[in-house]
Amino acid sequence: MGELRQAGAAAGFSVRRWGPTPRQYSSCLALSPFPSSFWPGSQVAVTFLSLASRLERVCVSKVGVIPGPGLVSNLMWSLWPGRVINAGKSRHNEDQACCEVVYVEGRRSVSGVPREPSRGQGLCFYYWGLFDGHAGGGAAEMASRLLHRHIREQLKDLVEILQDPSPPPLCLPSTPGAAGSSDPSHLVGPQSCWSSQKEVTHESLVVGAIENAFQFMDEQMARERRGHQVEGGCCALVVVYLLGKVYVANAGDSRAIIVRNGEIIPMSREFTPETERQRLQLLGFLKPELLGGEFTHLEFPRRIQPKELGQRMLYRDQNMTGWAYKKIELEDLRFPLVCGEGKKARVMATIGVTRGLGDHNLKVCSSTLPIKPFLSCFPEVRVYDLTQYEHCPDDVLVLGTDGLWDVTSDCEVAATVDRVLSAYEPNDPSRYTALAQALVLGARGTPRDRGWRLPNNKLGSGDDISVFVIPLGGPGSYS
Amino acid sequence: MGELRQAGAAAGFSVRRWGPTPRQYSSCLALSPFPSSFWPGSQVAVTFLSLASRLERVCVSKVGVIPGPGLVSNLMWSLWPGRVINAGKSRHNEDQACCEVVYVEGRRSVSGVPREPSRGQGLCFYYWGLFDGHAGGGAAEMASRLLHRHIREQLKDLVEILQDPSPPPLCLPSTPGAAGSSDPSHLVGPQSCWSSQKEVTHESLVVGAIENAFQFMDEQMARERRGHQVEGGCCALVVVYLLGKVYVANAGDSRAIIVRNGEIIPMSREFTPETERQRLQLLGFLKPELLGGEFTHLEFPRRIQPKELGQRMLYRDQNMTGWAYKKIELEDLRFPLVCGEGKKARVMATIGVTRGLGDHNLKVCSSTLPIKPFLSCFPEVRVYDLTQYEHCPDDVLVLGTDGLWDVTSDCEVAATVDRVLSAYEPNDPSRYTALAQALVLGARGTPRDRGWRLPNNKLGSGDDISVFVIPLGGPGSYS
Repeated sequence: MGELRQAGAAAGFSVRRWGPTPRQYSSCLALSPFPSSFWPGSQVAVTFLSLASRLERVCVSKVGVIPGPGLVSNLMWSLWPGRVINAGKSRHNEDQACCEVVYVEGRRSVSGVPREPSRGQGLCFYYWGLFDGHAGGGAAEMASRLLHRHIREQLKDLVEILQDPSPPPLCLPSTPGAAGSSDPSHLVGPQSCWSSQKEVTHESLVVGAIENAFQFMDEQMARERRGHQVEGGCCALVVVYLLGKVYVANAGDSRAIIVRNGEIIPMSREFTPETERQRLQLLGFLKPELLGGEFTHLEFPRRIQPKELGQRMLYRDQNMTGWAYKKIELEDLRFPLVCGEGKKARVMATIGVTRGLGDHNLKVCSSTLPIKPFLSCFPEVRVYDLTQYEHCPDDVLVLGTDGLWDVTSDCEVAATVDRVLSAYEPNDPSRYTALAQALVLGARGTPRDRGWRLPNNKLGSGDDISVFVIPLGGPGSYS
Repeated sequence: MGELRQAGAAAGFSVRRWGPTPRQYSSCLALSPFPSSFWPGSQVAVTFLSLASRLERVCVSKVGVIPGPGLVSNLMWSLWPGRVINAGKSRHNEDQACCEVVYVEGRRSVSGVPREPSRGQGLCFYYWGLFDGHAGGGAAEMASRLLHRHIREQLKDLVEILQDPSPPPLCLPSTPGAAGSSDPSHLVGPQSCWSSQKEVTHESLVVGAIENAFQFMDEQMARERRGHQVEGGCCALVVVYLLGKVYVANAGDSRAIIVRNGEIIPMSREFTPETERQRLQLLGFLKPELLGGEFTHLEFPRRIQPKELGQRMLYRDQNMTGWAYKKIELEDLRFPLVCGEGKKARVMATIGVTRGLGDHNLKVCSSTLPIKPFLSCFPEVRVYDLTQYEHCPDDVLVLGTDGLWDVTSDCEVAATVDRVLSAYEPNDPSRYTALAQALVLGARGTPRDRGWRLPNNKLGSGDDISVFVIPLGGPGSYS
């Protein structure tokens, strides 16, 4: 394990085995068996590849096989040397990644009723995380080490509830296990003032747990940022597989898609100054003190010149998706809260993503104005029910940092999935590794004409590139 | 025309011919000819049907033919007597409707360059509006009379720009026509501080004009509400057809869909306490003074009892889509800003729609707390390019108030479109009238078992029901 750690560190991302003992694993796996098409044994490769920008030599690394049932500690590694693409933003790969099998032991019996002996006592989830750091690698490193622990912490209260097919109780007693709390009538309030009570699903409890875990992670970074050198911030794209459902949580500009039978199913959307313009502008409008007299919440299509005062300029406010003309007044000469387009779009002329973890110290350039109030740590969580569809070995969930997606469209990824996987036998586990390699190297391009070029002669990605390929079906699903 | 007005008033909605002289029409139509498939002459019926709840007898009225080119003043009317459905909320139909052909004369030559003589000087748009009033009919009545004028006003500055195929100027001189302003370099700022300037489309200018028109309409209602008895508020669903594109603007819980070759294309979404929960909660969180100490911005799945203090209850805050448990504290006993489900969802226990016009006097029941700050007058605007598809006479845009959609799904509407239109010859203009009738009467149901029942024996709609059917293709599109 020590060697694995070293290899992981050298490759620029972290791998940890954490928490459960083998005994706990087997108990949790008996409780919540994966569908056979998802983890048909230990032969399924879950592949992570990462390319750092700006290094003369860089390691592209893959997690060969993630443990399937009964194969907990058998992590296989290999390192694959690559070369740097054109100059990036930092000396080191700021991407971090993590995949884990996490066991969650219930905090307590929520209803106070003694557990049935036949029931297991914990839950197990599979976890993958991609963390694209900026302005330093500290936040990404910390998130890759701790976010799944926060998710585990949030799920602890739900272990029993999630395993109970009846609807979740709306209200729980304050002191579980104490005298009197074993009365089941405590679980649902005796009366309702409204004509009805809302139905809350098990699924929405898991979503809430993941959302709050992101917030607790962010708060921990805020608390510990001085003691632990948590520099910068990071985008976080996380997958949790629990009780037959895949939860994809995204805060930032990474992206996840499912390629199923050639069809593309988007599993995330990006959070950027452009996609979140109206949320940002509304905040600036409602809390003008956050703009510090330096910025205007209005958007303009270009910078206004002082001599244009009194002329009429196109603008958008927080309520508009279209544009209109307004007479330019003095305060319109302030820098816009949101400006620029595409990869050059910025909040407060500084940051190009609007959700993620960290960034507690981020200030406007040559100013003391904090940017963090405009950033959200909350992910959007999408749920995919793996049991609703018979998956074949060519169906995969692809996670990638923006280094991949900046130069590769969803359709191109789907085409690569088809091309690479069809070149291998369905039960060859190395096919997913080859796919992840193909995606990363395809986004980097090949050296030509004084730069790294894609087949269409455009420049390859200059950013760090990290990809997870997670097969949704496996050889076991073939009869 | 006087008789038409009377007939319209009796039918519970308004019709006005306003503004242009015939000469202006012909000039504008020469400028912006409709595609022949859209208005193949004057034979295309644009049908509006409305059913009021709670009246013993009610008029279902239809605008038989809206003027096509060269047929400006030939509005044909008929009245069709119906019967009331089960008890509704008010004595009169609070729905209002309006359809117009509106001519927009340019306010001035924006560039200062003299107009070319060959060019027309104005623009023409076709307009349909459905206004679903609540707490009184004043706002709906006012909006049906004035909103299109506000749109015209906003478009006046754009007449020349929209007819110029080059990209819209980002900046306009302050004093058009004045000495010096004829220098075209005024149209685009001489320098740009950002590396690029944003591209703004003609389409987004029209969207911006419609958005601002809604705001000006709402502000006018606020100004004039005492003098003109503008009671209540209204949802507004508006269609603008201009220069080959259909703009559908929706603020409220009405709905528009296109049925094209049997396929359903949603052209709006509803704005309710459920769909806008996070916007409302964020506002309550950022501006707690708007909650007046009476409400909490947190959502709970049911009302909390005082004796449940200290227990743990499911909740959602403004950042969450999932649910989690929290310990109940004293301030959680306040009434939630958003509560209830479906048609019973309410903001501040009062109103079930979150966007629309008016409601400036709306207060929380038995309180002086205003609700208007939580309501938005801004529509979402969707654009449909009519020139991108060859439309047949069975392709229609259907607008309906919630009275229709509460009991009729999109698929059921599409099935009715198919069933009714296929029973008529493609060039029979009465087919669209029959379709609108079928939709309205289908949503009302038939009297049976002490109530108005749908074919599936469920209750018919108890609300006012209004429907526009707008054909997108016509007999002229058949060879």
